[in-house]
Amino acid sequence: MAKQKPRTLSGFMELLPEQQVQFDRMMELLRRSYSLYGFTPLDTPIIEASEVLLAKGGGETEKQIYRFTKGDADLALRFDLTVPLAKYVALHYADLSFPFRRFQIGKVYRGERAQRGRFREFYQADIDVIGDGKLDIVNEAEIPAIIYNTFTALGLERFQIRVNDRKILNGFYAMLGLTDQAPDIMRTVDKLDKIGPDKVRELLVGEDIGLTGEAAGEILSVIAIKGSNQEVLTALEGYRGRNELFDQGLDELTTVVKYLAAFGVPEDHFAVDLTIARGLDYYTGTVYETAMLDHPEIGSICSGGRYDNLAEYYTDKQLPGVGISIGLTRLFYVLSEQGMLNGDMNTAPADALILPMTDDLSPAISFASQLRQAGVRAQLYTEQKKFKQKMSYADKTGIPYVVFLGEDEIARGVVSVKDMASGQQQTLPQAQAIALIQSGIATRANAAPIREPERS
Amino acid sequence: MAKQKPRTLSGFMELLPEQQVQFDRMMELLRRSYSLYGFTPLDTPIIEASEVLLAKGGGETEKQIYRFTKGDADLALRFDLTVPLAKYVALHYADLSFPFRRFQIGKVYRGERAQRGRFREFYQADIDVIGDGKLDIVNEAEIPAIIYNTFTALGLERFQIRVNDRKILNGFYAMLGLTDQAPDIMRTVDKLDKIGPDKVRELLVGEDIGLTGEAAGEILSVIAIKGSNQEVLTALEGYRGRNELFDQGLDELTTVVKYLAAFGVPEDHFAVDLTIARGLDYYTGTVYETAMLDHPEIGSICSGGRYDNLAEYYTDKQLPGVGISIGLTRLFYVLSEQGMLNGDMNTAPADALILPMTDDLSPAISFASQLRQAGVRAQLYTEQKKFKQKMSYADKTGIPYVVFLGEDEIARGVVSVKDMASGQQQTLPQAQAIALIQSGIATRANAAPIREPERS
Repeated sequence: MAKQKPRTLSGFMELLPEQQVQFDRMMELLRRSYSLYGFTPLDTPIIEASEVLLAKGGGETEKQIYRFTKGDADLALRFDLTVPLAKYVALHYADLSFPFRRFQIGKVYRGERAQRGRFREFYQADIDVIGDGKLDIVNEAEIPAIIYNTFTALGLERFQIRVNDRKILNGFYAMLGLTDQAPDIMRTVDKLDKIGPDKVRELLVGEDIGLTGEAAGEILSVIAIKGSNQEVLTALEGYRGRNELFDQGLDELTTVVKYLAAFGVPEDHFAVDLTIARGLDYYTGTVYETAMLDHPEIGSICSGGRYDNLAEYYTDKQLPGVGISIGLTRLFYVLSEQGMLNGDMNTAPADALILPMTDDLSPAISFASQLRQAGVRAQLYTEQKKFKQKMSYADKTGIPYVVFLGEDEIARGVVSVKDMASGQQQTLPQAQAIALIQSGIATRANAAPIREPERS
Repeated sequence: MAKQKPRTLSGFMELLPEQQVQFDRMMELLRRSYSLYGFTPLDTPIIEASEVLLAKGGGETEKQIYRFTKGDADLALRFDLTVPLAKYVALHYADLSFPFRRFQIGKVYRGERAQRGRFREFYQADIDVIGDGKLDIVNEAEIPAIIYNTFTALGLERFQIRVNDRKILNGFYAMLGLTDQAPDIMRTVDKLDKIGPDKVRELLVGEDIGLTGEAAGEILSVIAIKGSNQEVLTALEGYRGRNELFDQGLDELTTVVKYLAAFGVPEDHFAVDLTIARGLDYYTGTVYETAMLDHPEIGSICSGGRYDNLAEYYTDKQLPGVGISIGLTRLFYVLSEQGMLNGDMNTAPADALILPMTDDLSPAISFASQLRQAGVRAQLYTEQKKFKQKMSYADKTGIPYVVFLGEDEIARGVVSVKDMASGQQQTLPQAQAIALIQSGIATRANAAPIREPERS
């Protein structure tokens, strides 16, 4: 028969079993972390009607969208989890209780230019809190705690959550009479890390934006404000009283900072950063980015913010919210590239491999059933192979314990257990063997999927 | 602004939060159950190259496939998890250890005619064991144990796993000199439950198939064999020695039945059923179906079997396997329609709702953090609403405990906890309150998502 060459599309992540276990463990920890903060899981279709998905229209994303027809239907694959959330909340409004807190971890699709580390199918892991009409600022203050505890649970240590408030930025530009130029200014200021202050000044006073040297200087001096969170807030207090929106933003940011300690976020994992702007019109209050301190080149690994109108394309209802998103597939790719996936995690398909040594397999099967009842993942190996090949199977897949059951063991009600890491083999009563394996796997079962490299 | 009416495509399941929690719980229990048997999780792209996905070509499914172009690429959405597995194993053969045991729970797409209870996007939950060249019969014997333990973990009680062996069927038809007619015969016999034996006989001797009355009688007498598993096997022994394939199939089926007890499958949840055939050419050995005893109209909720060539369209390697699949979305729909989802499950977004009664929220935030550290899902409720509305939020979302923190409680280091089910309110030291909530949610956290109706 003529064969079709098997291949996976470029831009689509497909992992080998060991890495898949690590990826799944990350998703499990995200679900757990999000759940602890009272977010309920949500799942929405990957395919939506194009007119619904693209109600907002335009934008850079539209070119990348997977859109097609099936019969009469004009369909599209979701390109984020926010638009489906907006549709969901507008559609099911009457059945939901507000504030509605949901998390969603799912695949989204963007026809990006094929490039190493760029994915066309990728997981996003989002949380959002949606209010009905209003939403209290404390929800914005809680987000850094969720980011902090989530990444800490994953095993990441060297990261920093950076926070700003769009009201401060918009208020400040209004103060300078630059409201119309604000979007251009923010887009320019956003490049500060990449191009430096001199080049930013040049762009600000250039003909495209056309600020005076004085205005450019004021802007650069504000975004140059650095120091502890308290120092930054104090410096900003110097501008209070000149613009209402600015003052409101400063109050919000002060509240967010105030509750950090109560929320358990260490000061060194959090920074007020006046250069953070997060896009142009969607966000209206607190905005968040999360940087890996040793890998600034990666950009933000968890971003989001406060918005005033989740579903304005679908409903007249005012639905303000705050949310964050983790680009999980790209994060996993980066962690893998950086050697930051924890090699000590148990990624084997099973905890114990049972090798029956008798024709009648019933005793081996019974022992495997007992192990499973004790929560041990047990695999029965019954292929007709040489002993060496069986051991090699355990070795290659990383199964930590091999259990032998021969005539002699069965007669005595014992099993022989080999610890593959230490090479030690013991013959034990069945209950003791189960306890040995249980305690042996307990530590590694809870290992974090991310491991920071040793620092010299 | 003109609004786009929000809607979800017909044939696409989108659940409200309470049901989504139940669905997710089913997926979690499936992952756990499959893992206990040594299956490793796998995830493959939803989009594949059409030439790869449709390598096998033809068939009824092809018309239903979502196929489209993006740029130059001819793409298709996966319509099952078996073809992507075949591609995966052929592509990554050198990196895998055999037998390769994987589970995959994921969405698949079929453009079915829109109809109540028919889904165009639905989850399948599959396991497969793939051998390299050979695969031992014990893997086939283990499958009923996995089906039994999986559905039992979900809370289902009234179900039966029905098993046959394609070698017995093919051997039997060869015995009668009817090998060429075997596919037609099996397709007809498969309708036995629906149309009855007389109609089956009529079709068998009709001009399309054209059997003699004698042959039709022999066939009907074999598929009429009923009784305990041992009785059926004994009756089949009467045909031994007339066809090698038949004898081999009978040996296999005998082995499968022999190990049931060791695998912990109760006799009343398992039946050898000679009418089961499962399609025509793919399966080559043991085949499985699973019936809900009180809902025969639903058909099989978990089916599969042994096959000899997983990936023959991609590779010359002989890759025999055995696998089963659960159509999870349809199963969930049916359970919901039948009122079989467990209403006693905790489907709330949180276990405890914290209501701060002071301006400074720090003590409430700290207590919420403590609850989370103790594994309690805690939600801080800080919206400016009337007390009654706050309690109504807890009530509507089903949050089992509400915690009040006023000046008085804070000064005394206590909290007031209201058990929403009993209405009882207690003021307790914080540690005791946490312990109370922990023990209160422990039972319901492990509730099975399916509940059999009371039987009179």
